[in-house]
Amino acid sequence: MVSVKLALVQLRTVKDKTKNLERARELVLQAASQGAQIVLLPETFNMTYCIEDYEQFAEHIDGLGETTQALSRMAKDAQLYLVGGSILERRTNADNTTSIYNTVTVWNPDGQLVARQSKMHMFAVDYNGLYENEGDILTAGNGIGEFSTPWGQFAFAVCFDCRFAELAMIAARRGCVGMLYPAAFTKGSGELHWELIMRARAVDNLFFVAGCNPAFDVQSSYHACGHSMVIDPFARTVAAAAYGEEVVVADLDLALIDEARRSIPVYSQRRFDVYPDVAQQPTSADGHRLIDQEL
Amino acid sequence: MVSVKLALVQLRTVKDKTKNLERARELVLQAASQGAQIVLLPETFNMTYCIEDYEQFAEHIDGLGETTQALSRMAKDAQLYLVGGSILERRTNADNTTSIYNTVTVWNPDGQLVARQSKMHMFAVDYNGLYENEGDILTAGNGIGEFSTPWGQFAFAVCFDCRFAELAMIAARRGCVGMLYPAAFTKGSGELHWELIMRARAVDNLFFVAGCNPAFDVQSSYHACGHSMVIDPFARTVAAAAYGEEVVVADLDLALIDEARRSIPVYSQRRFDVYPDVAQQPTSADGHRLIDQEL
Repeated sequence: MVSVKLALVQLRTVKDKTKNLERARELVLQAASQGAQIVLLPETFNMTYCIEDYEQFAEHIDGLGETTQALSRMAKDAQLYLVGGSILERRTNADNTTSIYNTVTVWNPDGQLVARQSKMHMFAVDYNGLYENEGDILTAGNGIGEFSTPWGQFAFAVCFDCRFAELAMIAARRGCVGMLYPAAFTKGSGELHWELIMRARAVDNLFFVAGCNPAFDVQSSYHACGHSMVIDPFARTVAAAAYGEEVVVADLDLALIDEARRSIPVYSQRRFDVYPDVAQQPTSADGHRLIDQEL
Repeated sequence: MVSVKLALVQLRTVKDKTKNLERARELVLQAASQGAQIVLLPETFNMTYCIEDYEQFAEHIDGLGETTQALSRMAKDAQLYLVGGSILERRTNADNTTSIYNTVTVWNPDGQLVARQSKMHMFAVDYNGLYENEGDILTAGNGIGEFSTPWGQFAFAVCFDCRFAELAMIAARRGCVGMLYPAAFTKGSGELHWELIMRARAVDNLFFVAGCNPAFDVQSSYHACGHSMVIDPFARTVAAAAYGEEVVVADLDLALIDEARRSIPVYSQRRFDVYPDVAQQPTSADGHRLIDQEL
């Protein structure tokens, strides 16, 4: 059996970057002591999800800011692949202005940055008295992230990105063994849709899916849903957290991918003669930029 | 509130066409008496799902065979739109050979055939001692079916087609208010995936989804899963059958589509600059044939 141990660190985040980094480090090392080989942190894990705080928490990745330095050390000290949740990334543009992205960084066991990709879909709602538009502050990324491990290729995208089926379809058709979502679903939309979306991405692609939210904290200004989970290629839950701070460790039995695809023949029966393959690159120059990873 | 009453007739099918047609008629009229305006029957509702019986049960639609005559009368007598499950359709080719399709016919309250489309994806498995290939006997259709009602446009596809996310995505993006699946999921794959797939199609597209299976019958050679269900645009179950023979009637509150799409902004935030729109027609001559409905 070829398997890999994946851990989700469902951190209880606070409005203090240093404290979040220290606690994340403790839990990543705890995951390592439980045998984890890949660890996933939540979206904006070094803060409490809040658009108003984005400016204050943003930092550079190039040249290694405080958070990326800490992540690099965590991966090296824990000797594992670390999908470092996401952070608010400040990037200097050619004209010396700066833009802010919601960016995932991935680190190998040597502490080296091996993949980096920014959230692609901006949550934007103006309905029923609720206004929120990430696009007011963030610049969107233009692709799915991917990184190689000794156990296969993994893809990743951020929170709201998981509502767009195309990304997981593309990742699976490009040969990835799983899709990882650092996220910060709210309690409300989490109760409606979190588990459904994680399982939907798995059943349609017959590969592994994992999503990691911050812990629910009744005292926080942001009520994250917790319930981080790992889903197998048959869309069964391998492991799931409750709502509090918790490290979830799951064994991914990679042979299940082949077993699922042989018994449920979606891979041999697709009708790309009738509908287009979303994983196919268009020929136009402006089109499909998904292979342009940022790193 | 603009709403429409949809009924699912979860028929207990037997190996006797006449009995199935009589029982279907009783239950369609019962649904009408409960106010149903649209009725959905299961896949191959005039037989018990079994590839070996396909030849024997196949009949012509053009010129109206026994089943399509019965369906036309049911729709007219019940005064409703009838998505007549699917039947094995024998079609005469140009060279006078015949082919068999698994075809859905849709009838309006005047008893007229208003849409018709054949199953597009052939179930084909050869694994763990199980061999089954619908393609050995059936010819595949090449599109999604659609029909207009006073309450909006509905799309439909057959059973295994529901595992392919593209069809529902295309239907929703073309403005359909719901996707209807005549199906015959087995108890085994039904327990694993039926509800998940129905809800997944709804959450990704924020429209109504309904699927109708035959009733589970322990004495039958084919163990259908029952559990026919109607899902709303928030992916909540509006109504669901248990496993036995049953008529499920659900009110579809069409305002929920707009409400879901305003509060979950997937429709405004898609990134067709990065990945292709599966609903877009390719320009090549051989490509996308989805608009070529069979009727």
